[in-house]
Amino acid sequence: MSRTSVTIQDIAKRAGVGVGTVSRVLNDSPQVDPTTRQAVQAVITELGYRPKSAAKILRTRKTHEIGFITDEIATTPFAVDVIRGAQDAAWAQGKLLVLINTNRDAQMLEAAIETMLERQVEGIVYAAMFHQQVSLPANIYEVPAVLVDCFCAEQNLPSVVPDEVQGSYEATELLLKQGHRRIGHMTNVESYPAKHGRIQGYKQALADYGVAFDPELITEEWTDPHGGYRAARRLMALEDRPTAIFCFNDRMAMGTYDLLHELGLRIPDDVAITSFDNQELLAAHLRPPLTTMQLPHYAMGQWAVNYLLDSNNHNHESAPPQILLECPPILRKSHQKEIDPERG
Amino acid sequence: MSRTSVTIQDIAKRAGVGVGTVSRVLNDSPQVDPTTRQAVQAVITELGYRPKSAAKILRTRKTHEIGFITDEIATTPFAVDVIRGAQDAAWAQGKLLVLINTNRDAQMLEAAIETMLERQVEGIVYAAMFHQQVSLPANIYEVPAVLVDCFCAEQNLPSVVPDEVQGSYEATELLLKQGHRRIGHMTNVESYPAKHGRIQGYKQALADYGVAFDPELITEEWTDPHGGYRAARRLMALEDRPTAIFCFNDRMAMGTYDLLHELGLRIPDDVAITSFDNQELLAAHLRPPLTTMQLPHYAMGQWAVNYLLDSNNHNHESAPPQILLECPPILRKSHQKEIDPERG
Repeated sequence: MSRTSVTIQDIAKRAGVGVGTVSRVLNDSPQVDPTTRQAVQAVITELGYRPKSAAKILRTRKTHEIGFITDEIATTPFAVDVIRGAQDAAWAQGKLLVLINTNRDAQMLEAAIETMLERQVEGIVYAAMFHQQVSLPANIYEVPAVLVDCFCAEQNLPSVVPDEVQGSYEATELLLKQGHRRIGHMTNVESYPAKHGRIQGYKQALADYGVAFDPELITEEWTDPHGGYRAARRLMALEDRPTAIFCFNDRMAMGTYDLLHELGLRIPDDVAITSFDNQELLAAHLRPPLTTMQLPHYAMGQWAVNYLLDSNNHNHESAPPQILLECPPILRKSHQKEIDPERG
Repeated sequence: MSRTSVTIQDIAKRAGVGVGTVSRVLNDSPQVDPTTRQAVQAVITELGYRPKSAAKILRTRKTHEIGFITDEIATTPFAVDVIRGAQDAAWAQGKLLVLINTNRDAQMLEAAIETMLERQVEGIVYAAMFHQQVSLPANIYEVPAVLVDCFCAEQNLPSVVPDEVQGSYEATELLLKQGHRRIGHMTNVESYPAKHGRIQGYKQALADYGVAFDPELITEEWTDPHGGYRAARRLMALEDRPTAIFCFNDRMAMGTYDLLHELGLRIPDDVAITSFDNQELLAAHLRPPLTTMQLPHYAMGQWAVNYLLDSNNHNHESAPPQILLECPPILRKSHQKEIDPERG
């Protein structure tokens, strides 16, 4: 095995430990059992591994660069907010973002990380374009890394994602506070964290307001306007139909508006609506403007870079934080009847 | 004057020439008059200027980095397509994009360029978030630079922008070919190249089809859905009202749809619609789906990086190219009545 081709995955395999453990040994973390540390260090010596870890780089010279790797930047307008948050935080500390988009190609991702390591970036932010679990190549453990809008199953990298449960709870509560008791929820056919978190928040809010959960009021669809249209049609065809609908996202809300307009129903007087995402282009301009929960893209990008640049965070004394960021409500007109000023 | 603080602007001022001329002298371009060249070189020696120009860097070492500077990345979903085009082109040639967003701050822009020069990037792409004329700090001339979706008045930097006239001509022609002769055009209240180019293309298409231009059919508004709604209301209140409308952009088309639906008019049967931008999120999901001209954001980002990396382009033998990229039509359902299959 040639010296340069040795990876921390090789070390982990030979030593019979996880890559996270190897990373902690390389970074002199106190969190490693002494016997394990000795075993890992023996393998490192045996294989002649030359660590490129950030701890080492930080001791020698700083490149003032942060690698920013995305899975598929193009598919969502959210991407710009994550990048903007990360870039603003980096610039404020005199750092530059170096950008690679991997088009969801696992080989390209590994090559992208390798390129960042060769450039000796001070750390890597890996951003997914929607909230999901990811599995990452082992070379990402060779440098401080933070995950945005995603997490790994082992939770051995710091991660920041939206608080789906809190956001969904509030989106439902806005409707409960208006007196609604039959509240429909349209959700994603695909099994992602946002789906499960939002169903959980919806049920929790109903329970807290003493409303029995009725499975008939949850319907699954594709998360585009056509899916929203079909989901709304099913909900409005129920014998005991809802007086309010909490839509999975703004695109589904767009289709819901179309269906309700076709049925001659007014928003919010006949059916009140809340949603999730705050895609400005849609939500602010629907008629009436849509009340929706803001996804914290800017804040996630900013948090990730700030966490990365705070050297106190690289001593690995505790498990990497798994942060949930709040999704604040953007109150517009779709959830609440206008209060008649005459009646105060 | 201290040696390190000398800029090419200082040289230009002292020599009584433009910064473009100084740049060409520094890059050994044959395009400079010999007397001028001598005069500029004398000033360079006198002031003790140390050029950091890319020609020099290319002769010594390559950093494999391209600076990507944006004016305000956050305000439009288009940004991701420009970045994606630039990033794909860069990665294909083993280069990395280093990103700085300047939030439309002139001082930050100068600092951003300076930072890029210090890092010895191989070149800079400066991207504006909509088609406009820009004036840039003098330090951008110290390295090969390409402008995306913008241009400078002197045309002394290569530039790539959308072909507004061609796009507008085709958007109007689509309606003329359907037999429409009363075609409204809603445009921007603000005086940007897109406004003038699109009015020009509209008039040219009318002229080519022998339709007299009627100034009553052009109306100015803010370019959001509310502006589109008001513009459509004015057009539809005309005594001789239009049977078709070419909207300045998809957001105005969204408001136009709302007004027409309120009036109980069908699209395209009562009023046919074309538009500009192809904001996928809107255009593909309006009812009916919107026929619109694609802005070439991906292609502009790609062209800029490819031009920058082709060293043949840095000999300055001719004036920097000012490229217009075609805006292809995305044909959906709003411009054309469905053909009855019975009548074939």
